[in-house]
Amino acid sequence: MITAAEVEKRVKRLHSLMEEKKIDKLLVTAPKNTTYLSGRDTGRLLLTRDEDFLWTREIYKEIYSDLYDDKKYPLEVMLYEKDAIKNQVKKLGIKCLHVDNPSVMGFQSMEKNLGIDPLATDVIEQQRMTKTPLEIGLLRKAADIAVIGMRKAYDVVSGGVKELDALAEIEYAIRKAGSDAPPFDDGMLLSSGASSADIHARAGPGKIKKGSTVVVDLGGRVYGYYSDMTRTIAVGSVDRPARRLIEYVDELRGEAIDMLKPGVVAGDVHAFIEKDMGRRGYKFYHSSGHGVGLNIHESPSLSSDSLDVLKEDMVFTIEPGVYIPGKYGVRFEDTVLLKKNGAEILTGFSR
Amino acid sequence: MITAAEVEKRVKRLHSLMEEKKIDKLLVTAPKNTTYLSGRDTGRLLLTRDEDFLWTREIYKEIYSDLYDDKKYPLEVMLYEKDAIKNQVKKLGIKCLHVDNPSVMGFQSMEKNLGIDPLATDVIEQQRMTKTPLEIGLLRKAADIAVIGMRKAYDVVSGGVKELDALAEIEYAIRKAGSDAPPFDDGMLLSSGASSADIHARAGPGKIKKGSTVVVDLGGRVYGYYSDMTRTIAVGSVDRPARRLIEYVDELRGEAIDMLKPGVVAGDVHAFIEKDMGRRGYKFYHSSGHGVGLNIHESPSLSSDSLDVLKEDMVFTIEPGVYIPGKYGVRFEDTVLLKKNGAEILTGFSR
Repeated sequence: MITAAEVEKRVKRLHSLMEEKKIDKLLVTAPKNTTYLSGRDTGRLLLTRDEDFLWTREIYKEIYSDLYDDKKYPLEVMLYEKDAIKNQVKKLGIKCLHVDNPSVMGFQSMEKNLGIDPLATDVIEQQRMTKTPLEIGLLRKAADIAVIGMRKAYDVVSGGVKELDALAEIEYAIRKAGSDAPPFDDGMLLSSGASSADIHARAGPGKIKKGSTVVVDLGGRVYGYYSDMTRTIAVGSVDRPARRLIEYVDELRGEAIDMLKPGVVAGDVHAFIEKDMGRRGYKFYHSSGHGVGLNIHESPSLSSDSLDVLKEDMVFTIEPGVYIPGKYGVRFEDTVLLKKNGAEILTGFSR
Repeated sequence: MITAAEVEKRVKRLHSLMEEKKIDKLLVTAPKNTTYLSGRDTGRLLLTRDEDFLWTREIYKEIYSDLYDDKKYPLEVMLYEKDAIKNQVKKLGIKCLHVDNPSVMGFQSMEKNLGIDPLATDVIEQQRMTKTPLEIGLLRKAADIAVIGMRKAYDVVSGGVKELDALAEIEYAIRKAGSDAPPFDDGMLLSSGASSADIHARAGPGKIKKGSTVVVDLGGRVYGYYSDMTRTIAVGSVDRPARRLIEYVDELRGEAIDMLKPGVVAGDVHAFIEKDMGRRGYKFYHSSGHGVGLNIHESPSLSSDSLDVLKEDMVFTIEPGVYIPGKYGVRFEDTVLLKKNGAEILTGFSR
């Protein structure tokens, strides 16, 4: 549960960051950002040097005051009625404000409706990259649920079982373990044999064959905070090249995690993985990882040329994968927490 | 499965719409739009008067040609490499193109990277409002899965059962019925008693009490096409006001569906529901419905002041709801298909 004290801390930190970036007024509209700053996605916020406002519908006003155990809610809760934000913007004499990166057409209608000159910013997404202790606690719980799901995966994935049936059992276990959402947005990934070479393949009605490899990519969610984890399961005895590839990718995952410490540039982690794969003749088709928090994919980006600098209290994935079209795919992924001296694996589990 | 013939039909229809709207060149980047026009979300498209291009990574090239049963894929599949789109844009001498409504910051970097003057458009979302026969077939299947889930809900929702446990059983049934994703993005909604008065409430670890009402909002997905359905279940014998409210909202759902026919303005449907509720002293806190397709929420919008005109072959929801803070909420929702003479309910089921 997100407390009033936590909201206060986040809002305060955002104000310092706004000052640093010379952002005077910030309108917050993206659901994950309003959740980050208020605990719910049912509001719109306006932060200024003097005062912070939260607009919400009448029916939710009570809920906001009930939401915070110590009842000291740090934002002024106002009624979201027609033109409520427009009127406040007028009242405060605002001519220009920043807004958290809406769609172009949303931006244009905002320009027209509010009668102001908006500027897009990702300042909140930048703040969300490093996690507070409360966030880290929730991410740990989400990671524990991922591990419960993965244990179930090793139990149910076997020859003759339909992909979708195995998936249903695993998602069921994840929900029973208390996940507040199914894995990710579209459900977990589970693909076997040749279809696992398609990075985007989803589970189908087909049966898992003995001797095949199965990529299982799943996670949990606790109070909105996600976890993300992948293992590649060998069903029965797989051939030697597949077994070797599984060992190789898993080891590469471990090596990449070993190189993590504060100050490392994200693009360099990707370059390390890509280069190692290249030496063995493999091409790396996706990024090496991504931040995890209120979004399953958020900053930092561990992709080619990424200049994001890894910092203490960041939580992100490391996920090398090798895909041999027509044959199989192998991916291993952990969610890690970056600490002063290196990374802690939150989704630690192997079998 | 989306066939090459279907892709051809959709692309052809989009070209007429582009001509009508005087859109010469259209860059397609949004995942649901690329899925709509190619069957997968792993590409980027550029449609011009003379030629249509689809860029995808090397690893997916084969998959695109395998995807279409008759092997006559109507788009030129090109390799997505660094600067591939930029080079093509240069080669074609494009100075200005339309793009499908990215975020402001994505738009700005596109402006910079492509060296062109982009314009945002929702022309594809407009086309997606009216469904093809193939889409309607998939939406029917998704609706059938929703009904299977709802039958399960009436079986498992009872006094003493934890909300999250009931939810896990229902989502399991939906997946076992072949849904290619869990309901919606964050999973289905299930809330009982006072928490059901919070429209955004999610299932928690608490037990469902006898004599309470439970709002169950779920759906299935087939080849990417969603369905959406809500019922309010009375657990054991509820008090007379709750029973009456359940009957009232369910009847209002039916009356709103009865008024649907091609040519009706969406805002008028909302006004009808809002007015009827108002006569009984209830305020209507959300919209009356939304289009359903590759997105769970898409156009048309059945909200206050919506000028969207309802047309044949549109698929959308009708969902009146009444919420009494501190007591309970009651919502009934069906996904309907609009035909020449009126609406067909795709999620028809009651108990």
